[in-house]
Amino acid sequence: MKDELQLKTRDVEFLLYEVFCVQELVKNERYSHHDRETFKAVIELAKDFAEQKFYPLARPLDQNEPYLKDNKVVTIPELKNTLDEYKELGFTKMSADMAFGGMQLPFVIAQAAGAFLAAANVSAIAYSFLTTAAANLLAKYGTDSLKNRFLGPMIEGRFFGTMNLSEPQAGSSLADIKVLAKPTKSEHYLISGTKMWISGGEHDLSDNIVHMVLARLEGAPSGIAGISLFLVPKYREDHKGNFSKKNDIQVVGLNHKMGWHGTTNTVLNYGENSDCYGYLIGEPNQGLLYMFHMMNEARIGVGMHATALGYTGYLHSLSYAKDRIQGRRLGAPKSELNQVSIIEHPDIKRLLMMQKLAVEGSLALTLYCAFLYDRYLVETDVSSKEEINLLLELLTPVAKSWPSEYCLEANKHAIQVLGGYGYTRDFPLERFYRDNRLNPIHEGTHGIQALDLIGRKLFINQGRSFIYLLTLIRETIFKAKEDKDLKIFGDELEASIRQLESVVESIKLKRKSSSDYLALSSAGIFLDAFGLILIGWMWLKQGIVVFEKLREEDTNSFYLGKKSTIKFYFNHDLPKARERLEFIARFDSSFVEMERDWF
Amino acid sequence: MKDELQLKTRDVEFLLYEVFCVQELVKNERYSHHDRETFKAVIELAKDFAEQKFYPLARPLDQNEPYLKDNKVVTIPELKNTLDEYKELGFTKMSADMAFGGMQLPFVIAQAAGAFLAAANVSAIAYSFLTTAAANLLAKYGTDSLKNRFLGPMIEGRFFGTMNLSEPQAGSSLADIKVLAKPTKSEHYLISGTKMWISGGEHDLSDNIVHMVLARLEGAPSGIAGISLFLVPKYREDHKGNFSKKNDIQVVGLNHKMGWHGTTNTVLNYGENSDCYGYLIGEPNQGLLYMFHMMNEARIGVGMHATALGYTGYLHSLSYAKDRIQGRRLGAPKSELNQVSIIEHPDIKRLLMMQKLAVEGSLALTLYCAFLYDRYLVETDVSSKEEINLLLELLTPVAKSWPSEYCLEANKHAIQVLGGYGYTRDFPLERFYRDNRLNPIHEGTHGIQALDLIGRKLFINQGRSFIYLLTLIRETIFKAKEDKDLKIFGDELEASIRQLESVVESIKLKRKSSSDYLALSSAGIFLDAFGLILIGWMWLKQGIVVFEKLREEDTNSFYLGKKSTIKFYFNHDLPKARERLEFIARFDSSFVEMERDWF
Repeated sequence: MKDELQLKTRDVEFLLYEVFCVQELVKNERYSHHDRETFKAVIELAKDFAEQKFYPLARPLDQNEPYLKDNKVVTIPELKNTLDEYKELGFTKMSADMAFGGMQLPFVIAQAAGAFLAAANVSAIAYSFLTTAAANLLAKYGTDSLKNRFLGPMIEGRFFGTMNLSEPQAGSSLADIKVLAKPTKSEHYLISGTKMWISGGEHDLSDNIVHMVLARLEGAPSGIAGISLFLVPKYREDHKGNFSKKNDIQVVGLNHKMGWHGTTNTVLNYGENSDCYGYLIGEPNQGLLYMFHMMNEARIGVGMHATALGYTGYLHSLSYAKDRIQGRRLGAPKSELNQVSIIEHPDIKRLLMMQKLAVEGSLALTLYCAFLYDRYLVETDVSSKEEINLLLELLTPVAKSWPSEYCLEANKHAIQVLGGYGYTRDFPLERFYRDNRLNPIHEGTHGIQALDLIGRKLFINQGRSFIYLLTLIRETIFKAKEDKDLKIFGDELEASIRQLESVVESIKLKRKSSSDYLALSSAGIFLDAFGLILIGWMWLKQGIVVFEKLREEDTNSFYLGKKSTIKFYFNHDLPKARERLEFIARFDSSFVEMERDWF
Repeated sequence: MKDELQLKTRDVEFLLYEVFCVQELVKNERYSHHDRETFKAVIELAKDFAEQKFYPLARPLDQNEPYLKDNKVVTIPELKNTLDEYKELGFTKMSADMAFGGMQLPFVIAQAAGAFLAAANVSAIAYSFLTTAAANLLAKYGTDSLKNRFLGPMIEGRFFGTMNLSEPQAGSSLADIKVLAKPTKSEHYLISGTKMWISGGEHDLSDNIVHMVLARLEGAPSGIAGISLFLVPKYREDHKGNFSKKNDIQVVGLNHKMGWHGTTNTVLNYGENSDCYGYLIGEPNQGLLYMFHMMNEARIGVGMHATALGYTGYLHSLSYAKDRIQGRRLGAPKSELNQVSIIEHPDIKRLLMMQKLAVEGSLALTLYCAFLYDRYLVETDVSSKEEINLLLELLTPVAKSWPSEYCLEANKHAIQVLGGYGYTRDFPLERFYRDNRLNPIHEGTHGIQALDLIGRKLFINQGRSFIYLLTLIRETIFKAKEDKDLKIFGDELEASIRQLESVVESIKLKRKSSSDYLALSSAGIFLDAFGLILIGWMWLKQGIVVFEKLREEDTNSFYLGKKSTIKFYFNHDLPKARERLEFIARFDSSFVEMERDWF
């Protein structure tokens, strides 16, 4: 059998059906037209397309960056051809509602399928990913008129979409965006100003591009309270209702990045000739709120992309480590002449194990969050729905960030397994590493996620979401402790969350007694520690299934591998959370006190 | 004053003259023709050349990789022009003996000067770096005849040199190299076979290329005991003694790497037409031994390159963080409208601090090791000389590896400070990150260094070098404890080395009672922990000077910054060593027990 190189299907199925039991979703009206077989078929389709179409395109796409010619962006023709096939197979429709022409698959299934595609070619899937995000905004907040005109083509992939948040002077600080929207006597507004870092901002891959643009209405309040959301199409309708009229949007530059070469990344000028039409989405001054509502899905998506890149790097390096013969077994007698596969060397095993725990742990967390979103959608009980929502809000910054950090590290280790070869462009590892470096930056940097977690999510509603989370983790621990082999890990996770509770409490007190500046200064470290504990929870959840299964089939390689990984995680990684929490609890001021001239 | 962007001169001078007092070297005959002023002048010259010539070349060099045309390697003309100026200024001669036409500067001064150059353009300096390594081999082990013919031109930079160790099937496992050397009736041997990863293996940047090639004499023992060293020139002498005759060496391919684009990296075929002349260096079958003798300097050099890349990334991101205005002070009242430089944000401070402690710590360790080498050279007492040598042997794998890991991380943080901008090629940060990824791989991978440390260096001679190291560290601790403010850090380092001793003891016992396989399985983690402790030692050494100086001038920004960094290191980083040593002491088998099908 050929090695799987994107994700391990067995692992995806294990998480979906054995650990999280997402097949239960079909009991709900929303997903009742599906069953486990359709889930399987969609994932299989994605997997095949990833291997056969997306993956072979990844290298040419990396080596031929889009460029500007006569104000147009030129991409290699294979990209359009492949994306056309992608659209035809319906991948753009996976999670959209049937009412709008979508397949209405659970988000978790769409994410699992998307993971195979992202692993094979993250910069090709980006166009579709952004389109889904834009379509979701439109579907949720747009008027019927706008939806009738734009939503169908977006879900079909005939129109692609983009998200326009940043400006040259306002990246992480959205409060300071300046793009302006002037009302007219008609339905449309006139948009003017510059947006930056717009992925998919210009290309010929679709019939139209639908930009979702944050802008200020004339006279709007300053700061985040004065930001509205506009739909601004590349082509607007002529009098016959055809999208034939070029809107007043200019590409003024392309950003050339270390990775993601296949995704055009643009600087756009809106309304250079005062003729850029935009359409208000929802209410005035609510733009950022809408954006945040949609952000959860996008951020889980980023976490999933990071996971996918980490996972494929892991599998590539694993396959190499099994094949590459070099050196002798450590500690072998000098008379031993036969060389071994490098997978026999402990340090290579360690490098593989570090990847395995990161990528499988990340996959568990991102799938869990995606599944929570589905449960939120189908939940009918108001208070349960609210609880799920709070939990999802709390976990999202971690689901975005932990994989972004640790799967980038995994890619670093994957290169190391291959040594000099891994550093060359003859293998895809260096590309994964370059691509993955973006994930801790876009959709809210690591630092922004950390502040979101510790400055907002942890304490809103008197910390209700945190309390709910701890209840859930304790349920898992309780269950784990019923198994005598798992008990030790349950105890360790219990100790970790006790320490976590106490640190959270002291941060709360510090915020009252001192300044937010000091209290929240270790936000980034807290995010890391919190993530390590959540991933520990994910491993314990897996452990409950694994240890039970092993009682029935004690030679099953898959479960044996999981079992060792769980042991390794609890011995090697969870202790790092303890060490980091201890640091936070000391409220060390040595870096906060640094003045600019001291560096 | 313009920001310094390569290294901070003040920091280099602090380490050289205040912490290590390298100026004492001039009391020795070997360096008596120098004084602190000449040291300063050389470093100043390197710094200017780095800023004005090397740095502007780095981007074009990165963007225009060498390529093969008609079996020749083509590089951009600016590279040759700049290297010609570099030679003219005498940079290739810095550390070579005067007897051979060198400047005979202390190695530590050559390293400090080289750090500025490497920070500005690591792939340009590589040619010179490899030439020095090759020249050192020749100077130490070559016959007078070979030295007379090749050494002078190499030291002048008219001939460049290369190191040929790896082969396609033998990277880390040098025991398995196959290149063959057949004796002839003349002085020369006939060399045949393929070498891989040869940096600077072919180009037109010098009049000749002198390859130092590991090969096997016909009938030599298998394994490392049968490896000899040969000098194989690109051009050999005609009957008039001119280097005009092309030797039988073919470039069969270039390796295309993620970074270091300016350094050609070749696959070379020797003796395709059975006419490749090589000259034996030293005794038969001693090649690997010679190579290892020279390896210390090369490995310290790699650590210094990693440090330099980390350092320049730090300074670039620092400069950006001071200039870039965005967002408001964390915890500021809502009414606060003024934006601040991002250096005011705690998470940015943390990202800068993580870089500062890594790059300044790495600089201290690499300079210290370079200084040890000088002290070894000038020491006349046999037993002291042996002690210094042992210490240097022990520290070298760490001086190579710790900077390679932590300064790569520093480059990751530098990108993060710039956010999206850092990910683009408009700034050099992504290039530093790509370039630095090589350092944990070449000149012996991280895993190889780890095994060298724990499997050999730590225990040779009944662990004498380790005992000597501990004595030195305890001397520093003793001194630190005399200062009431430093005492706490001295205590912490003391606790760490006690723990280290005990872990080393248990590894020793485990090797006896169990297998090397398990005992040495955590070599990579041990290297990390050991490195953290050594860097802590370097910070404590700095602390002794810093705390004393602050008593005289308590508003000196430089010392205040060092003081906070020391506190941060001992609070934030040294505890990680403890956590890692605890892991090692458990001899966890969860990753060692993994079978190939369990992954």
